[in-house]
Amino acid sequence: MSEENENIQFELTDDLIAEVEQLIEQKNDRELRKLLKGFHYADIAEILDEVNLEEAMYVIKLLDSETTSDVLMELDDDNREKVLENLSAKEIAEEIEELDTDDAADIIAELSEERQREVIGHIEDEEHKAEITELLRYDEDTAGGLMAKELVKVFETWTVAGCLRRIRGQAKDVTRVHSIYVVNKQNKLIGRLSLKDLIVAKSDEKIADIYIKNVDYVKVDEDPEEVAKVMAKYDLEAIPVVDDEMTLLGRITIDDIVDVLREEADKDYQLAAGITGDVEADDSIWELTRARLPWLLIGMFGGIGAASIINGFSDAMFKFPALLMFVPLIQATAGNVGVQSSAIVVQGLANDSIDGNILNRLLKESLLGLVNGLAIACIVLLISHFAFNTTYLESLTICVALIVVIIMAALIGTFIPIFLDKRGIDAAVATGPFITTSNDVFGILMYFLIAKLILGF
Amino acid sequence: MSEENENIQFELTDDLIAEVEQLIEQKNDRELRKLLKGFHYADIAEILDEVNLEEAMYVIKLLDSETTSDVLMELDDDNREKVLENLSAKEIAEEIEELDTDDAADIIAELSEERQREVIGHIEDEEHKAEITELLRYDEDTAGGLMAKELVKVFETWTVAGCLRRIRGQAKDVTRVHSIYVVNKQNKLIGRLSLKDLIVAKSDEKIADIYIKNVDYVKVDEDPEEVAKVMAKYDLEAIPVVDDEMTLLGRITIDDIVDVLREEADKDYQLAAGITGDVEADDSIWELTRARLPWLLIGMFGGIGAASIINGFSDAMFKFPALLMFVPLIQATAGNVGVQSSAIVVQGLANDSIDGNILNRLLKESLLGLVNGLAIACIVLLISHFAFNTTYLESLTICVALIVVIIMAALIGTFIPIFLDKRGIDAAVATGPFITTSNDVFGILMYFLIAKLILGF
Repeated sequence: MSEENENIQFELTDDLIAEVEQLIEQKNDRELRKLLKGFHYADIAEILDEVNLEEAMYVIKLLDSETTSDVLMELDDDNREKVLENLSAKEIAEEIEELDTDDAADIIAELSEERQREVIGHIEDEEHKAEITELLRYDEDTAGGLMAKELVKVFETWTVAGCLRRIRGQAKDVTRVHSIYVVNKQNKLIGRLSLKDLIVAKSDEKIADIYIKNVDYVKVDEDPEEVAKVMAKYDLEAIPVVDDEMTLLGRITIDDIVDVLREEADKDYQLAAGITGDVEADDSIWELTRARLPWLLIGMFGGIGAASIINGFSDAMFKFPALLMFVPLIQATAGNVGVQSSAIVVQGLANDSIDGNILNRLLKESLLGLVNGLAIACIVLLISHFAFNTTYLESLTICVALIVVIIMAALIGTFIPIFLDKRGIDAAVATGPFITTSNDVFGILMYFLIAKLILGF
Repeated sequence: MSEENENIQFELTDDLIAEVEQLIEQKNDRELRKLLKGFHYADIAEILDEVNLEEAMYVIKLLDSETTSDVLMELDDDNREKVLENLSAKEIAEEIEELDTDDAADIIAELSEERQREVIGHIEDEEHKAEITELLRYDEDTAGGLMAKELVKVFETWTVAGCLRRIRGQAKDVTRVHSIYVVNKQNKLIGRLSLKDLIVAKSDEKIADIYIKNVDYVKVDEDPEEVAKVMAKYDLEAIPVVDDEMTLLGRITIDDIVDVLREEADKDYQLAAGITGDVEADDSIWELTRARLPWLLIGMFGGIGAASIINGFSDAMFKFPALLMFVPLIQATAGNVGVQSSAIVVQGLANDSIDGNILNRLLKESLLGLVNGLAIACIVLLISHFAFNTTYLESLTICVALIVVIIMAALIGTFIPIFLDKRGIDAAVATGPFITTSNDVFGILMYFLIAKLILGF
């Protein structure tokens, strides 16, 4: 490692974990401190996620609270919960003192109500305590639940020089200065300034003369996904949060939004795969079962429904056994088309790129279904005729059914998410097993009805 | 609109679009300029995405290039392509002059090679031209393809006062100052400084004494997803890009990473639903067919495979017709379980939270499959026995098959993504139709084999 390049990128290796574990076992505090000092807190958290609780607690008690508070924030949720259980209220309060208000409130919110009161009682900095208590009042799923109280605020009446002097004071508490928010005497947000504007300006100018009136903001009760959309659209790195009277309450930074986007993407991906609740590969079998079984049960009832339909047409089974061979084909195609259609709609809804005209969209999906259906039907026609020796009427049945089922699946896949969205339900629920199952059942029913019509049993 | 709150949040309404279209038709340039002046460029882009090409071109020619260059960047890809086709090389060059180097390079990269040369020839600012030409050399899917040349760079030998003076000069070209990068005489990155550090420091201090040696960076050929991971992990708002010799080449800002994350999430979501290529609801039927048909064909071949299997066991069909009723149930369950398992693994791989031990993971999935399988089998046992009058042996067959198929589907769903990942293939391809189809076929095969074993046909 040369002097000029200390920044070897961190890699979590088994050797490194073994080394940390050995140093803990030997109680070699000096070497352990020296080793961990070189790492970023996010890296230390990754190491602690790999060792056992006792070892993690050892490291947390060893390091200073300035580091451990950040490490705590980065730990896996499950591990943080265990670590917090092993810390006294006073110890947690010490960690809290080192954190920004948004992170502090997030940690406290994870505790039981009784412990929350205990921990808050131990916070010594009265301003910090008041700010955290305020943040705890906001719902986790709102802009208020994301925001921090740390921000740089200037009054329009100040001069540039006075401003810079005061910012030196305020900025000590703020890790990164994104924007400087300009307020009037009533603490209402009226504009913004960048640190750059301030440095470039002459020192005797008034803030009122140089501030930018055009400032984006979000209301404190806004949905986090909406905040993410606004920040992404306008390329913002921080956005002020206000109440209905435009009083400046806090600010949200882009790194929190990056987390929101990642969680949202993970959640939607899991929903589409039929998994509810935010589970990870490492969660317990019980947690994973709870997240997965309900969707399998939906599929199961669909399967029972399909069995009833086939049972209802059991006479036909004996007359035209070839038909039954193609049930899996009909079912798979219906499911696949439905998932495709709904995924496109769910994404369009999320990006606000779907306009109001449902009829047009359904028409387009029908046309698309017709094109895809014809293509697939032609191939199936050839295969069924030559490889399975189906009669002409049987082949016709299968092909007509395929086209009809594809169009119907596309329509169901398009309609259900739009319908749910209009009712205020998260359309993402609609993709995955829900659509697959309903399309399975409808598809098979349609298949037998068409068979009945063409073959006349 | 009160004087103190000019910031009514933008909403794209039909009335607004109609107003813009009317002003264009009347060629009322004065009112049109006045109306659009109040909007953010991202909002103007949203309006232009809704009007026709002729109207969009009218607005673009009307507004100054400082605004239109930003509007261009925000337009829908398809619309931007059309607008660029309608601009001369000289006009494009004028837009380019107003853009940051990364955006400029992105726009030029969308043109044909011949037009690229023409446009670059028309750029008047020689430094801008050289920087854009350099950026065009990097692959779009690397850190180099994301980075911009605009950054604030100081030499370690400077003083704080000298530094501030020079930054005032450099910063004019940089929209937002994130970090100040410290380099040595050889232009190698050795550290960083925040604007805040600089303001808080005494003016006669040397940069060498106050800069922070610990600086995160990425290599110019790094994968954008990897860059996103590093920036999210360390909560960075900008990251410097270096070559193998640590020469400072450019910087990537978090807003570009937000776009990477959104695109990545959209792509994975579509892949899981069996859609390739980045299509939107508004794309043409032909584009949508190309994105969707290949996956439907995979499903179709699966269906044909299932038909062959059933055909192969056609004797059994006549002896135990009840068995066939439950084929859809087996198929749906196998597909659903497979998608769930693979989604968990794909996400784990994306977040690096899956450790090397494949055997452990397969064991856990088997156990999970056993739990889910037993739960579902019990319900199906009751329903099949009472509602469908299946014999004991038939019921036993269905239940055993369900449990075996669920475990097998979980194993396939877990194994395939890990296998693909080890081979360097994007595991996200594995979820969706690919897994569903293979599980359908294997599930049905397994079902009949178990039936043969238990019922002995």
